Amino acid sequence: MGKRVGTYTVQFDRPVLIRGRGSAVGQEEGKGPLGGYFDQIAQDAMWGQDSFEKAEKRFFMEAAKKAVESAGLGLKDIHYLLGGDLLNQIISASYSARDLDIPFLGLYGACSSMAESLCIGSMLIDGGFAQNILCATSSHFATAERQFRYPLELGTPKPPTGQDTVTGAGATVISAEQGDLEVKSVTVGRVVDFGIKDANNMGAAMAPAAVQTILSNLEDLNADPGYYDAIITGDLGIFGSDILLDLAGKNNVDLSGVHKDCGKMIFEGMDKNCGASGCGCGASVLNAYFFKKMLDGDLQRILFVATGALLSPTSVQQGESIPSIAHAVHIERRAGK
Amino acid sequence: MGKRVGTYTVQFDRPVLIRGRGSAVGQEEGKGPLGGYFDQIAQDAMWGQDSFEKAEKRFFMEAAKKAVESAGLGLKDIHYLLGGDLLNQIISASYSARDLDIPFLGLYGACSSMAESLCIGSMLIDGGFAQNILCATSSHFATAERQFRYPLELGTPKPPTGQDTVTGAGATVISAEQGDLEVKSVTVGRVVDFGIKDANNMGAAMAPAAVQTILSNLEDLNADPGYYDAIITGDLGIFGSDILLDLAGKNNVDLSGVHKDCGKMIFEGMDKNCGASGCGCGASVLNAYFFKKMLDGDLQRILFVATGALLSPTSVQQGESIPSIAHAVHIERRAGK
Repeated sequence: MGKRVGTYTVQFDRPVLIRGRGSAVGQEEGKGPLGGYFDQIAQDAMWGQDSFEKAEKRFFMEAAKKAVESAGLGLKDIHYLLGGDLLNQIISASYSARDLDIPFLGLYGACSSMAESLCIGSMLIDGGFAQNILCATSSHFATAERQFRYPLELGTPKPPTGQDTVTGAGATVISAEQGDLEVKSVTVGRVVDFGIKDANNMGAAMAPAAVQTILSNLEDLNADPGYYDAIITGDLGIFGSDILLDLAGKNNVDLSGVHKDCGKMIFEGMDKNCGASGCGCGASVLNAYFFKKMLDGDLQRILFVATGALLSPTSVQQGESIPSIAHAVHIERRAGK
Repeated sequence: MGKRVGTYTVQFDRPVLIRGRGSAVGQEEGKGPLGGYFDQIAQDAMWGQDSFEKAEKRFFMEAAKKAVESAGLGLKDIHYLLGGDLLNQIISASYSARDLDIPFLGLYGACSSMAESLCIGSMLIDGGFAQNILCATSSHFATAERQFRYPLELGTPKPPTGQDTVTGAGATVISAEQGDLEVKSVTVGRVVDFGIKDANNMGAAMAPAAVQTILSNLEDLNADPGYYDAIITGDLGIFGSDILLDLAGKNNVDLSGVHKDCGKMIFEGMDKNCGASGCGCGASVLNAYFFKKMLDGDLQRILFVATGALLSPTSVQQGESIPSIAHAVHIERRAGK
């Protein structure tokens, strides 16, 4: 049974293990520096489907099926699917849940959804409510652009603070048995609002939420940043990452030695404004790259902190600022593995 | 620690108690036969706000604050807020979470969200991860019409199978201690697709999901429908309720003696097509009416089965059918109370 530690963190007594992982990304992501780590790279943005939305669902499905397969399990062994995506009414996850036929708990935490699903999933495993849980999220550049900003056909240029939504998905099977990586604690975040109103400056809106959750986790565990080999944000991008380091510094916490950002890494060296965003960004990079590095022994202990900007086009049009949230998942390589 | 029973159900060993409840509804709902049960009735659809969306958030906030107050707690005593709504990116819940400053896990299960939040919340309480959890959902006729169908200004008439989205919200505080009602088991649903493509016939789309989850719960608990004093669906409406009884009958299960539908009840005797829908429907009627009836001793054991239609306007435009889901929450009056 889990125990609460400090004010916001929950620690697990029983094994909560990473048993399977899957990822599928688009062409551009495949061309980037992490291209070699992903399980599948689509040949184009449609991936054989007749709409971008249906293509996004295919990314979700491929990552999910790969995670279950790599866990050595069948769909019938999975007690719950926890997942979501950026689309209105999370249709990528919902339609995937229909096809996978697994009891489904739909989540919406914008780009924090992968961390949210791992937080809830870990608690359900530790509590004995499920043996195996599939956590998955997806995003797609073309579906996100037309829903949140402008259809691609308009050719609208992005400002320098803009980020490109990752086309891709990541999925993890967490399990009460089997797996060399272990979720040790989770910190569920509160919503933070820095007053940012520019939907093309998500990094600035989300950085304060990441800082708050990271500081809560460190304080609750009575740890320094160096306790982790890497503190990994989901998609703050280049500008948002700078703000994160700056805000943490103002709280006398130096994250510069351990901070990594999936949104910076996936398009590093490519001409992509401030980097990447989207639920599929953190989800695919965590599952493809960071879990591999941990399994290889290059990293022993990480804190995965996916951030989400909880705006809608309607709320922005009505003059609301952009509230954000971040959840943290603390994962370790098991001793002797 | 919870234990799995049968294939889809989880039973709780430790007390998971209903400690607080709150509801707030619109004028029309207040005029209906349940009007006397709601905590607050707004004077109009705007409720002092400058947009329908901000009004919906006020319903969410009022119900949430009332639930916490009636639990005899402060906001700082609540470890998690689990909630969602029908709006894109669940902005009613997200902006409320910002103002309430409680660690937030955003959910999307369309009109099943209240049951989803109670399912997850109950597991987190039983697992020892939280002492008190606030579960809340909302909907609003005007925000839902313009997002899912037509803006009210167009005066578009509804077909006879149409349902009116409830303007209102309901909230429950579940707790590890204190409360006369107890969550005994939960059944998380799978997504069912009956092939319905008419977004004005949600009852037909959702009824098969309700039947599947009710049958799973009864089978897992090895119980007859009469085990419950009432099996309460969230918002199938008049036509959907008929389909429910019919489909259950085809499975040789007679639900006619115990079935109640919040969507039928809230507008009973009023001229409202097929009744009501929306997350706020089941949430407000459960908290205002059914919990009151249980506390009064008129009902001992209920199964609350909120259903959700997981469509989006985009998926419908792209020719997809409407997948649906239902989650069940089994609640009892505690012995000697």
